[in-house]
Amino acid sequence: MNTAVSSTEKVTQVILPAELLAHWQGHRTLTRKVIEAFPEKDFFEYSIGGMRPFSKMVDELLSIAGPGIQEIVTGKQAAFTEEVAHGNSKSKVLELWDEATEEINTNWTKIGVENFHEIIKLFGQYEGTVQSSILYFIDNEIHHRGQGYVYLRSLGIEPPMFWDRNEL
Amino acid sequence: MNTAVSSTEKVTQVILPAELLAHWQGHRTLTRKVIEAFPEKDFFEYSIGGMRPFSKMVDELLSIAGPGIQEIVTGKQAAFTEEVAHGNSKSKVLELWDEATEEINTNWTKIGVENFHEIIKLFGQYEGTVQSSILYFIDNEIHHRGQGYVYLRSLGIEPPMFWDRNEL
Repeated sequence: MNTAVSSTEKVTQVILPAELLAHWQGHRTLTRKVIEAFPEKDFFEYSIGGMRPFSKMVDELLSIAGPGIQEIVTGKQAAFTEEVAHGNSKSKVLELWDEATEEINTNWTKIGVENFHEIIKLFGQYEGTVQSSILYFIDNEIHHRGQGYVYLRSLGIEPPMFWDRNEL
Repeated sequence: MNTAVSSTEKVTQVILPAELLAHWQGHRTLTRKVIEAFPEKDFFEYSIGGMRPFSKMVDELLSIAGPGIQEIVTGKQAAFTEEVAHGNSKSKVLELWDEATEEINTNWTKIGVENFHEIIKLFGQYEGTVQSSILYFIDNEIHHRGQGYVYLRSLGIEPPMFWDRNEL
């Protein structure tokens, strides 16, 4: 957490930009652990009830996080495509995940507290404020990761603890 | 969304208290729809991979939301118990869900923007700020609801749309 923040700022804000970033990245760290927990084959193939394999959900998350934050910062409409070039390699997926982590951190510094209520239309489709869009990114990730937990349990694999958001 | 909020407030806040409440309640509205989507028997019995039935996850959510917000507002330590008295009736669960909705709304008015960074130790165990605790409540609900989606799909039932947070 950002300890450089003054206590005055803290008492006049529900959540500070630096805290929201840490919250998001904490969730992304946990999702990374869930990706790692999947056996390579199951990550790309295993599914329940006709749903997508977890890799496809992760493709969606990768298609949203980096491009989304980029669009928020630049105002330049990003194309929404869930085609992620990883050639069905989990290590490549993790590499792309880490690149997105950096992309988020770098772009975050360009979002001021005054920007969070600006109205944007992400990917030319999803209208909302910057804050509601970012919360949507996070919520959508938690939602699909929760589904990944069921896949893992059903494969007999113990998922990482839900509250464990720290880097390994 | 709270339209009574001035635009000045909006530009100096990442998210306003009224917006965070609407965000939480929107998620709770969706979770209510997921509960409704379950056949009575499956709600209490169906499970995958040795996990809890969805009703038990909902018991957890009910044990956290109302008692948690109560403790945040009163400072009086709530007991954490997942024993929810619904006698395995889904309509009773929904009734308790709606009571918690009111409890959250009523208590929310007593939380000022200056309270969100106070440190609390919920249920005598979980230390954090008021905001991190509330975000945890929301995240935990999204996580388990995502698992409920897999149960529904696996039962051949189409779950409500993830983005549909409006009351019926």
